[in-house]
Amino acid sequence: MPFELTKELIEQIIALIRQQDDKAILALLEDEHHADIAEVLEDLDLEQSTYIIKLLDSDKTSDILIELDEDIREKILQNLSAKEIAEELDELDTDDAADMIAELPEERQEHVISEIENEEHKADIKELLAYDEDSAGGLMAKELVKVNENWTVLKCVREMRAQAENVTRVHSIYVVDDHNVLKGRLSLKDLLVTPTKSPISEVYIPKVDSVNVHEDAEEVAKIMQKYDLEAIPVVDDKERLLGRITIDDIVDVIKEEAEKDYQLAAGITQEVEADDSIFELSKARLPWLILGLIGGLGSVLIMEGFEGALSKYKELFFYTPLIAAMAGNVGVQSSAIIVQGLANDNVKGSLLNRLVKEVGLSLISGVVLGILVILAGFLMSMEIRFSVTVAISMMCVIIVAALVGTFVPIILDKRGIDPAIATGPFITTSNDIFGIFLFFYIAKAMLGF
Amino acid sequence: MPFELTKELIEQIIALIRQQDDKAILALLEDEHHADIAEVLEDLDLEQSTYIIKLLDSDKTSDILIELDEDIREKILQNLSAKEIAEELDELDTDDAADMIAELPEERQEHVISEIENEEHKADIKELLAYDEDSAGGLMAKELVKVNENWTVLKCVREMRAQAENVTRVHSIYVVDDHNVLKGRLSLKDLLVTPTKSPISEVYIPKVDSVNVHEDAEEVAKIMQKYDLEAIPVVDDKERLLGRITIDDIVDVIKEEAEKDYQLAAGITQEVEADDSIFELSKARLPWLILGLIGGLGSVLIMEGFEGALSKYKELFFYTPLIAAMAGNVGVQSSAIIVQGLANDNVKGSLLNRLVKEVGLSLISGVVLGILVILAGFLMSMEIRFSVTVAISMMCVIIVAALVGTFVPIILDKRGIDPAIATGPFITTSNDIFGIFLFFYIAKAMLGF
Repeated sequence: MPFELTKELIEQIIALIRQQDDKAILALLEDEHHADIAEVLEDLDLEQSTYIIKLLDSDKTSDILIELDEDIREKILQNLSAKEIAEELDELDTDDAADMIAELPEERQEHVISEIENEEHKADIKELLAYDEDSAGGLMAKELVKVNENWTVLKCVREMRAQAENVTRVHSIYVVDDHNVLKGRLSLKDLLVTPTKSPISEVYIPKVDSVNVHEDAEEVAKIMQKYDLEAIPVVDDKERLLGRITIDDIVDVIKEEAEKDYQLAAGITQEVEADDSIFELSKARLPWLILGLIGGLGSVLIMEGFEGALSKYKELFFYTPLIAAMAGNVGVQSSAIIVQGLANDNVKGSLLNRLVKEVGLSLISGVVLGILVILAGFLMSMEIRFSVTVAISMMCVIIVAALVGTFVPIILDKRGIDPAIATGPFITTSNDIFGIFLFFYIAKAMLGF
Repeated sequence: MPFELTKELIEQIIALIRQQDDKAILALLEDEHHADIAEVLEDLDLEQSTYIIKLLDSDKTSDILIELDEDIREKILQNLSAKEIAEELDELDTDDAADMIAELPEERQEHVISEIENEEHKADIKELLAYDEDSAGGLMAKELVKVNENWTVLKCVREMRAQAENVTRVHSIYVVDDHNVLKGRLSLKDLLVTPTKSPISEVYIPKVDSVNVHEDAEEVAKIMQKYDLEAIPVVDDKERLLGRITIDDIVDVIKEEAEKDYQLAAGITQEVEADDSIFELSKARLPWLILGLIGGLGSVLIMEGFEGALSKYKELFFYTPLIAAMAGNVGVQSSAIIVQGLANDNVKGSLLNRLVKEVGLSLISGVVLGILVILAGFLMSMEIRFSVTVAISMMCVIIVAALVGTFVPIILDKRGIDPAIATGPFITTSNDIFGIFLFFYIAKAMLGF
């Protein structure tokens, strides 16, 4: 029966905490998965969730803590002593332990690390903390199963059993030489079907993908996806085996990347969630709104410049939100397609090809939308000369907007800047200003005011 | 040495194809990964890539075909006979084979299936084709390793070796009873560390997550992410084991879902790529632009209704693009946060709480932006009464836009409609119209025209 988070369950747990009925709480939560208990904790208040964390075994609570939302974890850790945190860390894989320490205030980190009992674990965690969190080193865990190329299958199985105890999932067994240089890999399946006396050097697969410890996390994600890998070994510049990255960490990288791009396109910086505080949400949203405001004030100035047209062609001014909307929408569409294309490496062909294509595309849209504007003008009894002017200048605006939307991300990408920041408000705002200026400029030339 | 796709390599291959030097082509591509060869093929023309596919072994080409971009695969398959396609299918796992058949024109599907030689493989593929592609059944493969609970570990290892030959990666060994009902699982690790005479029933883990074959694909992705699973068994309504889903398929589901949401937010329907044809791109983009156009024409009508203000307060009309931009940006921000929150199940608390929060949030933004408008008005020597009017009506517009952006997705979600369609042009356009109307309405009340 799958776990279901019900109001009744939460109320029952709160009541048990109030009665300090530890036995009943343990009985209730004992068989639940740590990810489910994390969900329960997110519905309790800080005092109650700390109570549960202190009550349960640290082999379970360490996993629960990792599953929790960062804000809640941070608060609970504030309620734990350095020694208690170190006990949790002892139960975690090195990569999760390093991530958890990295979230602590700096002055606490040293103290917590010094409390970790297992010296090897401590050294591994310290090593991981030194890597950039967006690099392969920041993603990898030190836990892995490795064997020496000079061993036999039998010795390998024996050694492996010991090592495997510390490794949650054995994807591949890595084969190294005496200097810890990665030579190849063995699968568990291979080990099961090979005579036990064969030397490893005869049975291992010498072709093994690996990434350098300083490789960018997104690049690692691309490699693992491309080659359908579930784990990849991480090596240093001398090809020595340092750790391994598993697919579940990559799933997180992919999700975070997608969410970041989505937020940037919507005009939100920083990773915010619906449940963050008003202050944090404002901090993420306001800068983009101010950018939009500046753009809007720019439009005001442009229209003041064309004020002379008011007496004869006041309707031109009524069309400005339409022009701005078209310029914005077309720009966002073009930039979104390019940003995704760049992320998936499928923006091919020369810049000239892309230019011709975007112009063709916006000509089609422009003609269709222009005809609709002329038809609507007819229904609203506009002068035909006026409607045609609006339609033609709108078409020019659409072409320019499409080009801006396409080439700004491409140029940013070439300069090593994340093209996703060019989507959303940035493109919309600059296209608003460009568009309104172009609209009046062309209308002036055609109508002669 | 990692593979690198260079111009020289492509030119070399094209030259070899022209010379029909099959030996040299085979020598060149033999050791490359199928994902790399797929990249090479995407840079060749149809005739050249078909030539390579016909030249290489079907155990390699089947994997290459699966890696190819759908458009290119479709064209190459058109150049192959039903028998040739069936040979490719014979080499593929059932899930990939079913996906490939599903892409063929319907009249060809039957013919190709009838050419598949392996009867069991044929039946499995037919079964998979019957499931909805967005369900667990549409994602699963029939290939898995299963053992009977009544066997010993020794018999299990022996049977497993035979079964494992057809399974690319053995994640878990599933344990079933005599009626094929899923009872539990064993890991390869367990098998390696258990005495061979133990009966399976004593060593297997009875707790195993599974999903129903009709479960929604996105739901499966959530479960596998939540519990950090690398594979999950799929069962029918009677808990009988039908197949299994692996994490690499889930990575694809997550990526596609993220890309779809991103495109919807940018006003693009259907999954299009930068390299699709102008016609396909137009089809995906035009409907949203027409929606925007209709909204823009609505604004024209609203402004005509307030035309009386032109003589005294012509500047009001200069501010309309600014108002529209603010309404649009705020709306998109709010809806993006809610859409992501709904996707991650972290929109908690009552609707009233959310209402209070959004109003608070937009009040802060509104006040900051309002002060900036008044300052800008001062610099542009606007009348202070006018600037304050613009600032206050803009604040009201921002509040309404935030509420629309928040509650439209929530309402859609409650009605079972994908809330992502409410982001982007839909919110922008409706907020443009609402915003401009509200702006003039409030300005009229305050300035009295």
